[in-house]
Amino acid sequence: MIYFRSDYSQGAHPKVMEALAKTNLEHTDGYGLDEHCQNAAAMIKDLIGIQDCEVYMMVGGTPCNITVIAASLRPYEAVIAARSGHAYFHETGGAEATGHRIVAVEGVNGKLTPELLDRAWAEYEDEHTPLPRMVYISQPTEIGSIYSKAEMTALAQKCRERDMLLYVDGARLGCALTCKENDLSIQELAQLCDAFYIGGTKNGALFGEALVIKTPQINDHFRWMIKRQCGLLAKGRLIGVQFEALLEGGMDSIYFEMAAHANKMAEKLRNGLEERHVPFYSCSQTNQLFPVLPTGVIRELEKDFFFYEWAPETNGMTPIRLVTAWGTQEAEIDAFLKKIGEILG
Amino acid sequence: MIYFRSDYSQGAHPKVMEALAKTNLEHTDGYGLDEHCQNAAAMIKDLIGIQDCEVYMMVGGTPCNITVIAASLRPYEAVIAARSGHAYFHETGGAEATGHRIVAVEGVNGKLTPELLDRAWAEYEDEHTPLPRMVYISQPTEIGSIYSKAEMTALAQKCRERDMLLYVDGARLGCALTCKENDLSIQELAQLCDAFYIGGTKNGALFGEALVIKTPQINDHFRWMIKRQCGLLAKGRLIGVQFEALLEGGMDSIYFEMAAHANKMAEKLRNGLEERHVPFYSCSQTNQLFPVLPTGVIRELEKDFFFYEWAPETNGMTPIRLVTAWGTQEAEIDAFLKKIGEILG
Amino acid sequence: MIYFRSDYSQGAHPKVMEALAKTNLEHTDGYGLDEHCQNAAAMIKDLIGIQDCEVYMMVGGTPCNITVIAASLRPYEAVIAARSGHAYFHETGGAEATGHRIVAVEGVNGKLTPELLDRAWAEYEDEHTPLPRMVYISQPTEIGSIYSKAEMTALAQKCRERDMLLYVDGARLGCALTCKENDLSIQELAQLCDAFYIGGTKNGALFGEALVIKTPQINDHFRWMIKRQCGLLAKGRLIGVQFEALLEGGMDSIYFEMAAHANKMAEKLRNGLEERHVPFYSCSQTNQLFPVLPTGVIRELEKDFFFYEWAPETNGMTPIRLVTAWGTQEAEIDAFLKKIGEILG
Amino acid sequence: MIYFRSDYSQGAHPKVMEALAKTNLEHTDGYGLDEHCQNAAAMIKDLIGIQDCEVYMMVGGTPCNITVIAASLRPYEAVIAARSGHAYFHETGGAEATGHRIVAVEGVNGKLTPELLDRAWAEYEDEHTPLPRMVYISQPTEIGSIYSKAEMTALAQKCRERDMLLYVDGARLGCALTCKENDLSIQELAQLCDAFYIGGTKNGALFGEALVIKTPQINDHFRWMIKRQCGLLAKGRLIGVQFEALLEGGMDSIYFEMAAHANKMAEKLRNGLEERHVPFYSCSQTNQLFPVLPTGVIRELEKDFFFYEWAPETNGMTPIRLVTAWGTQEAEIDAFLKKIGEILG
Repeated sequence: MIYFRSDYSQGAHPKVMEALAKTNLEHTDGYGLDEHCQNAAAMIKDLIGIQDCEVYMMVGGTPCNITVIAASLRPYEAVIAARSGHAYFHETGGAEATGHRIVAVEGVNGKLTPELLDRAWAEYEDEHTPLPRMVYISQPTEIGSIYSKAEMTALAQKCRERDMLLYVDGARLGCALTCKENDLSIQELAQLCDAFYIGGTKNGALFGEALVIKTPQINDHFRWMIKRQCGLLAKGRLIGVQFEALLEGGMDSIYFEMAAHANKMAEKLRNGLEERHVPFYSCSQTNQLFPVLPTGVIRELEKDFFFYEWAPETNGMTPIRLVTAWGTQEAEIDAFLKKIGEILG
Repeated sequence: MIYFRSDYSQGAHPKVMEALAKTNLEHTDGYGLDEHCQNAAAMIKDLIGIQDCEVYMMVGGTPCNITVIAASLRPYEAVIAARSGHAYFHETGGAEATGHRIVAVEGVNGKLTPELLDRAWAEYEDEHTPLPRMVYISQPTEIGSIYSKAEMTALAQKCRERDMLLYVDGARLGCALTCKENDLSIQELAQLCDAFYIGGTKNGALFGEALVIKTPQINDHFRWMIKRQCGLLAKGRLIGVQFEALLEGGMDSIYFEMAAHANKMAEKLRNGLEERHVPFYSCSQTNQLFPVLPTGVIRELEKDFFFYEWAPETNGMTPIRLVTAWGTQEAEIDAFLKKIGEILG
Repeated sequence: MIYFRSDYSQGAHPKVMEALAKTNLEHTDGYGLDEHCQNAAAMIKDLIGIQDCEVYMMVGGTPCNITVIAASLRPYEAVIAARSGHAYFHETGGAEATGHRIVAVEGVNGKLTPELLDRAWAEYEDEHTPLPRMVYISQPTEIGSIYSKAEMTALAQKCRERDMLLYVDGARLGCALTCKENDLSIQELAQLCDAFYIGGTKNGALFGEALVIKTPQINDHFRWMIKRQCGLLAKGRLIGVQFEALLEGGMDSIYFEMAAHANKMAEKLRNGLEERHVPFYSCSQTNQLFPVLPTGVIRELEKDFFFYEWAPETNGMTPIRLVTAWGTQEAEIDAFLKKIGEILG
Repeated sequence: MIYFRSDYSQGAHPKVMEALAKTNLEHTDGYGLDEHCQNAAAMIKDLIGIQDCEVYMMVGGTPCNITVIAASLRPYEAVIAARSGHAYFHETGGAEATGHRIVAVEGVNGKLTPELLDRAWAEYEDEHTPLPRMVYISQPTEIGSIYSKAEMTALAQKCRERDMLLYVDGARLGCALTCKENDLSIQELAQLCDAFYIGGTKNGALFGEALVIKTPQINDHFRWMIKRQCGLLAKGRLIGVQFEALLEGGMDSIYFEMAAHANKMAEKLRNGLEERHVPFYSCSQTNQLFPVLPTGVIRELEKDFFFYEWAPETNGMTPIRLVTAWGTQEAEIDAFLKKIGEILG
């Protein structure tokens, strides 16, 4: 069985495993107060070119998203997100569990725009309506598209104009940054938003994300917030050690090498599917593809390949999700394309 | 200044005031455990023809909605509501404050349909998505339309099929029940849903709503829930006394007389506006009308009349809301129609 | 049956009823944005001698307490209160429902002291422990005692030292202010705390409390908080109208007259019980008395009088609560003392 | 610097690291739906002798505690715990963040008793008071003591009598089970409670706890609860793989070997301290010791050893916490005893 199911179906990059093995018997302080976490944080501050911020080593993406939301907002305040955004669509109401509405907006190819934010604000009235105060986006989006520098800049400007915080979910940030069409550097991204995270789980870590928060109001007692939201890892250093290994070398690190590889594999797959005139559910530029196939074809593919159906069947066609990752091998792409070629004839 | 701003701009029907005055010096037990509340509950059970239910005297509509939501759902469960529904649109995230998402759906003339519920369910996946478990509707809706017997029956059936609870916000229930086009009796409504309330605030009470809950799972420790949600009134009898006065005589009570009057005043107003070819934002059958007028006309009207603008201006036209109530006088309608006639020429 | 069960067993003072009747047919704006609420707020600002504050007309005491807690604290922050304090003991976890712990401390005669606050702080560590940030007290306390000027001043000073907010629940504030032993004026109280409320429900209103908030951080979007906590009354003016009637004349108003009467009735009762050597559960100085009686005696008394048992039986003795109010008549006290005299022999 | 600071200052047992390395490149399904998690769950069901239960692989102890509390209780229900219990004392109000009070009770040597539960219930009244519905204990307790079979049985019986759920935090369960004085087997423990967890983080795992839930009401949609509480790990198999390695061989596995070693090291340390007549803050039977030392002595010790101060100084004496673990070496104990011998003279 070949896996295109997710970018978290394998363990970690061998260098990450090595680093964990090498530091295994060290004694350190707990809860992320150790030197590895501090060192990883310093590496990240250098990478993004901002020293005046805090970096937190978090267990996963949902803890990042929900803890930031809970730490940022007053009780009556709300988040605006695309309907397809992870925090709305795939976190089981974790945001609402902290008391905050996510105002869900139909995105444009998975993305929010200044106009969509204005439209959401048009529904805001007064003390009878939750007050939008944060914008949640993902880079790349859940459906693989990326914000250009111009798009992200316009969004950030609208946020400042409306007095809203801008938060960027970077679960697959590596794939956005190494995407051929990308023109937004990590330094620029960091400048434009209030907080974002560099995802490890979906790019070669065992687990863990590095959350960067610039805005003092969010940083205020943020470690209290992590603990309250059940996200403070006792052996917090495990995340620091992994990010040290992932980011050694900065833009030349294995972190970006792995992401570039995932993109390259996705491109090969996309090209192969396009040659066979397979339509796509979204216009993805990164490591997730959403081909739309006859349901019968999907049943055949499922015998050899493992992937998700992404949306309900319409007129006999069903969108599936194919994800490539750092561990995807060219032969696996070939096998998929060969098989689909055989089925489609 | 003539008020068409709301159906809660005046105090209570004189008979309600009389009842409060008459019972003022009685000593009773607190928190709704008195004989007036019990008597009002018994009157309501008779009125709806269901004895096997509980009736709670609540301070207001938002406390009804939010307490029922909080009492009904497990933490990961969600409510489906029309985007225009009060619990979504005008309660400042009170539902989310109890940890629950409201999945907002564009309604059809303010109403949900079985198809819309199916579509909301199509987005439900598994443990990563909040589980829809309650449907919130208003009868009449926020924009004045009513569910016919066939529509409400179909909705209730879909709810049972999907294992969802059906809750009906009856803030203006009197106006639905006395609407000329209505074919759904209060007894039938009560049969079809799990819980609903008979609104007092917007139909001649000082304040207070009578919440009827049939389903044992919601009734379980419901008084604990009322208190926890800050809604237990010390002199709870005040609500019981008012409902005794409002509902004396059942379908011939002042409750329904007042609602019928409000509808009649609205009809006169609607007819007058239609004669002047004023378009409407929604197809209202009850005591709220939403004419769409040139913004300049609105500025003129505002000099003599007090009302809300309902939605943002589009192409120079703005929808306003005109509300009639038990205390609206025919001369006030005449004055409005005369004025608008003068302005429109 | 004679009621010593609570100070909310009757309706409102006749002058309150008159004011409600007189204004009943007025049309006003809703949600407390009317002239009566504004006028009552202005009267209260004059009464307390502070103009730079906000006054909110609230439906009840629990909504005051919980909304203030929710509006004041960041998610990881906690309240310190006496174990007997209303917000801890009698609000069904309403504070926890907003996500905040109440650290319960055994009070000294129902009161907190600077030493008790220090002791609570000694348990505070770091990000693993909720951070105490508000002190909740009642004046008078739940068991009838009052804070002297020196005690309240010391507490307020400790709060400032520890960077904690001080909130005073004034459900029975009138009885504290008119208590013979009281040396703390309402102006001084208002100066010492961040927020407090003047209770109406337990002192001659139908319902309603006037909440005074001085501290900008709590006032920030407080009306959004009221709505979110389900406490915004549609006909908000009802509370304004009542407070206009209650406080007309300031310190010579019926508000203080009623409270003084309740205290006087309690004093007569206390004297009578002391003459009969009845011991007391607490040292009450106001309108609630907690005599401890043989359980058999209580069973006899219950035949003619209605009151609460206050705490579990110990060695055959049970504390009861006797409450006097604005409507308590001297003859009712006489009847009670006569009866207890007969029983005790 | 020698660490007695915690039992989570090192990484994992070499066999755990090996298992992670060996399985690293396997592709599996995410979120704990893989074969390693299923296999570990089956091993645990066999170990505890109960097949009719669910086993969840959780990221940490706080996620176990808080998710179980949130999944078990209706909104108005509360937990009873010892004041020193982890869920009350060291989780930053995570329980309150889910809306539930923890009623904190002074324990007896860190333990709850049936009498203490009865006393907590004596404070429960009616709809004005949160309803105690779950008892939270730790085995061993936070201060190192263990419940005997008789004690745990009596507590479980009281819980059933009061219709309360019994939950056991087993962060250091291995140390309880391998303690010389222990007479309560894991099978018996599992029989007596509704849910408990077998702690990995503090006994040789990188991270992870195996949560066992027997009671259907808690198991209902529990994976939804894990996700909502931000605790669902993408590469969930990491925990399964670790528990496979930890528990291979059942009672003869490295899990119990490591715990026994930690206890043995603690015993040596305790004996050494007792010989020097050092008093203890609590009567610990497991791997945490709480000697009380002159603060000056502590300052000396801190130069070579790393540990926590546990409680505020009293009369010049301060309790500290010394923790041994699977990686503690006999020479480290000797060094500590030697040093303290030198200081105390």
